Amino acid sequence: MPPLPVPPSVNSAHRLALDPIATPERLLLGPGPSNAHPTVLQALARMPIGHLDPLYIDLMGEVQELLRYAWQTDNRLTIPMSGTGSAAMEATLANTIEPGDKVLVAVMGYFGQRLVDMAGRYRAEVVTIERPWGEAFDLAEIEAALIAHKPAILAMVHAETSTGVCQPMEGIGDLCRQHDCLLLLDTVTSLGAVPLHIDAWKVDLAYSCSQKGLSCPPGLGPFTMGPRAEAKLAARSGKVPNWYLDVSLLNKYWGSDRVYHHTAPVNMNFGMREALRLLAEEGLEAAWARHRGNAERLWAGLERLGLELHVSEPLRLATLTTVRIPEGVDGKAFSRHLLDRFGIEVGGGLGDLAGKVWRIGLMGYNSTPENVDRLLAIVESELPAFRPSPAAVAAGVA
Amino acid sequence: MPPLPVPPSVNSAHRLALDPIATPERLLLGPGPSNAHPTVLQALARMPIGHLDPLYIDLMGEVQELLRYAWQTDNRLTIPMSGTGSAAMEATLANTIEPGDKVLVAVMGYFGQRLVDMAGRYRAEVVTIERPWGEAFDLAEIEAALIAHKPAILAMVHAETSTGVCQPMEGIGDLCRQHDCLLLLDTVTSLGAVPLHIDAWKVDLAYSCSQKGLSCPPGLGPFTMGPRAEAKLAARSGKVPNWYLDVSLLNKYWGSDRVYHHTAPVNMNFGMREALRLLAEEGLEAAWARHRGNAERLWAGLERLGLELHVSEPLRLATLTTVRIPEGVDGKAFSRHLLDRFGIEVGGGLGDLAGKVWRIGLMGYNSTPENVDRLLAIVESELPAFRPSPAAVAAGVA
Repeated sequence: MPPLPVPPSVNSAHRLALDPIATPERLLLGPGPSNAHPTVLQALARMPIGHLDPLYIDLMGEVQELLRYAWQTDNRLTIPMSGTGSAAMEATLANTIEPGDKVLVAVMGYFGQRLVDMAGRYRAEVVTIERPWGEAFDLAEIEAALIAHKPAILAMVHAETSTGVCQPMEGIGDLCRQHDCLLLLDTVTSLGAVPLHIDAWKVDLAYSCSQKGLSCPPGLGPFTMGPRAEAKLAARSGKVPNWYLDVSLLNKYWGSDRVYHHTAPVNMNFGMREALRLLAEEGLEAAWARHRGNAERLWAGLERLGLELHVSEPLRLATLTTVRIPEGVDGKAFSRHLLDRFGIEVGGGLGDLAGKVWRIGLMGYNSTPENVDRLLAIVESELPAFRPSPAAVAAGVA
Repeated sequence: MPPLPVPPSVNSAHRLALDPIATPERLLLGPGPSNAHPTVLQALARMPIGHLDPLYIDLMGEVQELLRYAWQTDNRLTIPMSGTGSAAMEATLANTIEPGDKVLVAVMGYFGQRLVDMAGRYRAEVVTIERPWGEAFDLAEIEAALIAHKPAILAMVHAETSTGVCQPMEGIGDLCRQHDCLLLLDTVTSLGAVPLHIDAWKVDLAYSCSQKGLSCPPGLGPFTMGPRAEAKLAARSGKVPNWYLDVSLLNKYWGSDRVYHHTAPVNMNFGMREALRLLAEEGLEAAWARHRGNAERLWAGLERLGLELHVSEPLRLATLTTVRIPEGVDGKAFSRHLLDRFGIEVGGGLGDLAGKVWRIGLMGYNSTPENVDRLLAIVESELPAFRPSPAAVAAGVA
């Protein structure tokens, strides 16, 4: 017998001795995550059950059905992906793009750019139309691009979290059918909060997240795929080039076969089930009206304080408001002051709007008149100290 | 002005009216998820904070450092992927395989086969060596395959959850360096529970999950990448063909730049931080010894009851035991009885072992003598009713 190998000794260089976790309560009024509903948080703390347990299988059915309600779709393939919204975004592209497919992306902000990056990784031939950050597309330019490029997929963003624009969707689905093209829609910042009609708008693929309109922590990416997109998936010549997000495999778990794919994030789905249950209890029309009402209260209040909103009123998104940082104000210093002094998070600008706007979110559980009034009162009392003094302005040093 | 479009009406066909969630407490003694530690569950229920909040950035650092301890590695790139263990598995392959790279997979069970499937999707030229389900590889066959195939990557499974085998790792890393090949290791069912030395064993890439040895619910996939794998990633000619799992992007968020990539699953990371803190508090040697001791208690008890273990003693995995289903017993009916009558989950066989074994897990929080004794007592009292009667055996109808 050869001598047994001597096992390596244990290295304790990285063995931190920490106190129990002690995160503070924040009021999250940025681009997301938003605060989660306490009922959802309590569901997360339940003891897990098995991902093939008959009771978990029942829960999966409830989550799927309630997601169909939230999205206003009958799509069979409606499931939460086991990752964040970006994973669900990637799932829409990975499953439907075949190498060389032409994908038209309508870019009006940061998340349109992300679609371009992702689609390229799946070897699509990507073409874009663009709009300045803060504007939206009209039907005529979309039709012209469909005619010029004859894409297999048109990908666009319903609610641009980077700009605060809500893209009007009426008529776009009809154009896509006319030009034999799938319509893929980012609904990350609209699901559960802003009028959204997947089937009536003839959307073939959509994705969202858990941490905004649904009042759940981040970690799941709702995904839906209609029959035309399913047909494209079924007709593809090779395997989906992404195992984790392969809907043909996932469908065997979420469908009636219940074949093991990956171990589902059971507790996150407990939370999602409760989040969707609460949304169904409130009702979509009521949730949409609540978000709209509180957003209007915020807009009026900000304008009363002399602040300028970045997006014109008809295109404004109820969940996310972009406010221009006044001349001479250090936007980052002010957000940091709100966080440190009041525990309130608001977001900064991304991409073209970096340094130019604050992003204020009123999403899900956080969309309340009390939160609006609290934020407005704090902005009113705290912002003046961050404005340049009249003398500095006069001297041109602001 | 054209008339405003009439918004579609809301369809309530999928608006389920549900009661609040009411899942039962199960004792999860299957292949995972295992029960989570109550402290971890309480952490999941904390109100989220922002994924760019300075306090969250601190927490990310703690999670990384404690993962290094758990894995016994100094690897800079040590992070939890925002998906389950399968996502982390895919991340190891997606980041390092370039089209046409030869990948050698040592297959001795279901998860080796999964590596083959995934590697193929990244356009590797995949070759395999195989072992019957329940055995492990020796150094000579691995060396012979490295010489014959000259792969860029050798991928193998440390702890095969489908068979209950723990692959001896001594010497394999040296062979891989000698033959200029990266060593990629599945540690899904060993991290935190079974001796595991990423650096001493010269492992270049590894992944795991949250729901087994770490006592956290499923939803995060620990990932680590050493300098040789980093160099292969840095030298690749094109983008990583998977956006969500692209370590070159993720590194900008988890590294010192803190550039936004995707919205982190904040609450799952609260849980992970607590799970790793508790592991560091117990200490690796103590956790490993606990798992080993309880597994031996289980093995002895099962053999006392006349049951046969599928894996020979030197290769047995402390976290997962495969027990042969006795002749004439309906294995599925017995597991279902344990679940329905006692709330205890044990697993069935997968692939080559479907219908032939039960899989009993003793992982993390669940690895206790009390759980072992409870299961043994129930098997002793309940299994006889599921055995065929002596008359049936004599008549040959069992």
